[in-house]
Amino acid sequence: MDIRETFLKLDKQFTSYGGLDPRGITRLLYSEEWRQAVGALQDIFKENGLEVSSDAIGNVSGRLIGSEFPDETIMSGSHIDTVAEGGHLDGQFGILSALIATLYLKEKYGQPKRTLEVLSIAEEEGSRFPYTFWGVKNFFNLQNSDDVKDITDDEGIKFVDAMRDSGFDFRTDDKVRDDIKAFIEVHIEQGQILEKEEKQIGVVTGIVGQKRYTINLKGEANHAGTTPMGYRKDAVVAFTEIAQTLVQKAREIGDPLVVTFGSVKPVPGVVNVVPGEVEFSVDTRHIDEEELNAFAKTVESTINEVADKYGMTADINLWMEQSPGLMDESIVKMIEESAEKVVGDSYKVMPSGAGHDAQIFAGYMPTGMLFVPSIGGISHNVEEETDIDDLVNGIEVLAETLYKLAY
Amino acid sequence: MDIRETFLKLDKQFTSYGGLDPRGITRLLYSEEWRQAVGALQDIFKENGLEVSSDAIGNVSGRLIGSEFPDETIMSGSHIDTVAEGGHLDGQFGILSALIATLYLKEKYGQPKRTLEVLSIAEEEGSRFPYTFWGVKNFFNLQNSDDVKDITDDEGIKFVDAMRDSGFDFRTDDKVRDDIKAFIEVHIEQGQILEKEEKQIGVVTGIVGQKRYTINLKGEANHAGTTPMGYRKDAVVAFTEIAQTLVQKAREIGDPLVVTFGSVKPVPGVVNVVPGEVEFSVDTRHIDEEELNAFAKTVESTINEVADKYGMTADINLWMEQSPGLMDESIVKMIEESAEKVVGDSYKVMPSGAGHDAQIFAGYMPTGMLFVPSIGGISHNVEEETDIDDLVNGIEVLAETLYKLAY
Repeated sequence: MDIRETFLKLDKQFTSYGGLDPRGITRLLYSEEWRQAVGALQDIFKENGLEVSSDAIGNVSGRLIGSEFPDETIMSGSHIDTVAEGGHLDGQFGILSALIATLYLKEKYGQPKRTLEVLSIAEEEGSRFPYTFWGVKNFFNLQNSDDVKDITDDEGIKFVDAMRDSGFDFRTDDKVRDDIKAFIEVHIEQGQILEKEEKQIGVVTGIVGQKRYTINLKGEANHAGTTPMGYRKDAVVAFTEIAQTLVQKAREIGDPLVVTFGSVKPVPGVVNVVPGEVEFSVDTRHIDEEELNAFAKTVESTINEVADKYGMTADINLWMEQSPGLMDESIVKMIEESAEKVVGDSYKVMPSGAGHDAQIFAGYMPTGMLFVPSIGGISHNVEEETDIDDLVNGIEVLAETLYKLAY
Repeated sequence: MDIRETFLKLDKQFTSYGGLDPRGITRLLYSEEWRQAVGALQDIFKENGLEVSSDAIGNVSGRLIGSEFPDETIMSGSHIDTVAEGGHLDGQFGILSALIATLYLKEKYGQPKRTLEVLSIAEEEGSRFPYTFWGVKNFFNLQNSDDVKDITDDEGIKFVDAMRDSGFDFRTDDKVRDDIKAFIEVHIEQGQILEKEEKQIGVVTGIVGQKRYTINLKGEANHAGTTPMGYRKDAVVAFTEIAQTLVQKAREIGDPLVVTFGSVKPVPGVVNVVPGEVEFSVDTRHIDEEELNAFAKTVESTINEVADKYGMTADINLWMEQSPGLMDESIVKMIEESAEKVVGDSYKVMPSGAGHDAQIFAGYMPTGMLFVPSIGGISHNVEEETDIDDLVNGIEVLAETLYKLAY
């Protein structure tokens, strides 16, 4: 079996479920394109002698049953959904890697001792409905059905109607599988670290923890001409002081700490009024929970100090808080050894700055993850791309690792 | 004649043209409310023996003809239009001051030597159509009819149709009056300086010059989790550095220099993406043209330096540039003497940070301007207010000054 040719063929096929030209793949949860992809995957499983199964909400598996320990499962996969106008590798590459590695091992070594399972996770991106990790949450019975009952997509279609129209429904039991002994996810890096450091494989130590805030600073709106600088309570000026202070501190603390002010909305937001109010976002991430918590304290105290200094009020809303999801040390070691075998020393042990399904698995079983480089760090975009050699390397490193775990 | 009672009565009447409760006066150019106010003013002129005239576009005058020099006019007034949901003093108080001062002088001293003229300027705010100073520009034949030909209001009504429906039309001659020997405008301060310094009258030395920019900074959009701080070209971070640097420099230079960043629009403007682009506004003002030009150079060089430092591009668009409009020194002196007579030393000689019709007059004839305090500095708002004692003082200072000029 030629891994490269197989990947190119399958990638072309799955990319057609949601299109690519001219603006990328759109394969949203429970859409027609999503159903095509899930159906095609099940067909491929069957054609290749994998045992097909699906849970209530649409997580789909293909299993190659083990000879000695059929009830011990080594699982690999990723999510089948995409963002709107996304690329052809995010999620899709993880599923195809798992499929190709499994078929490659089957062809080369025959039946494994432990069961190998390829998993297609129904949803991760939260692109159609405002709910993320629907797939993996259901996998571990973490979903809250009440949270999705009333949500709709942009066209007003209800989540539950879309789900039922696709032939799925809420799960009715609370069983969580205990047969899975390891989970490995392959993913594109979605960053520039591997490319800039000229590495072929990223061996992921964990998914960074993150905190997201919405801050509302209230000063005083005034006429931009008639209010001397000393009389102003300019919320934008206060924001710029906060941002400069925090960026400076983050740089001093160093990688992998990041802080981002992605959204800034002054009120009233016109050229000739001193902005009396500003709403801005803070997103901060670190792989070390203590470091993350310490920086979050700095974020909050800096905002309060600057607000006090200018006689403003600050409303600090921490609306998202996620602990780091650490990968299993022995699996990390195993992936590292596999990477060394495939690409020599051209790999990097690194945290993942983006969230992935693997972070949920990590709470339940030994979990590992590996990255392939993203050209220009671009993802969630039609321009998302990875060199074909790097993609093949990624599949080979996964196959090597699954071999160690299952044969 | 009781100035206070007369003002209260007239203010109530004119406030009714556009309402006040619950959200302020809306009296937009060529609207029904505007026509009511202009018509009522002409009626009052007639009833009080003033000679009524109007130009082609709706600037309206009431003249008390002088005995010795009927062709030498001493003029006072302001604009009759308001912003949407504005207050009852902005513009309106300037017209009523001119009217009341003129009638007061007529009653007390009879016919003046020079002609006294009360002017209602058709438009200043640019609130209905995107064109400001339509009234005063026509007064000096500075309007560009092509600029208004295709503009419409929020409801799609064309400027020209609104004008013609009100009985007005483009001017057909290019004559500019040469009889006006002085123009005085009374206005609310729209700032907090008089209130904070506990002064009753502002004697205006000039209208600050101003420059307005729209800046587009282009860096690189990246994933907020996967992009280390050192790899980023974060346009919001660059903006905050620019703003902090410029605010710091403006504070060092000191009053009356002001700089404002009222509009900030990051792209894509979401919490988890490093903003690759930001569009922001800069509004800077100073009464001294050299100081203003020097600071504008600092604005531009700071933006370019920060953009260079981060490898970004900066598109700097200076789209509004207005030179300071200096008041006539002898008129300033005269108003100062009048203020001293009315309020003792409780006046302040100061620049105006806001634009006013007087700045256009200042280019053509000896011009003066005086302020009354704004409570809390609030204007363009239903809460715009001034203590009645201060309003009466303002009218008295104007009357005193007109007396010196016309009797």
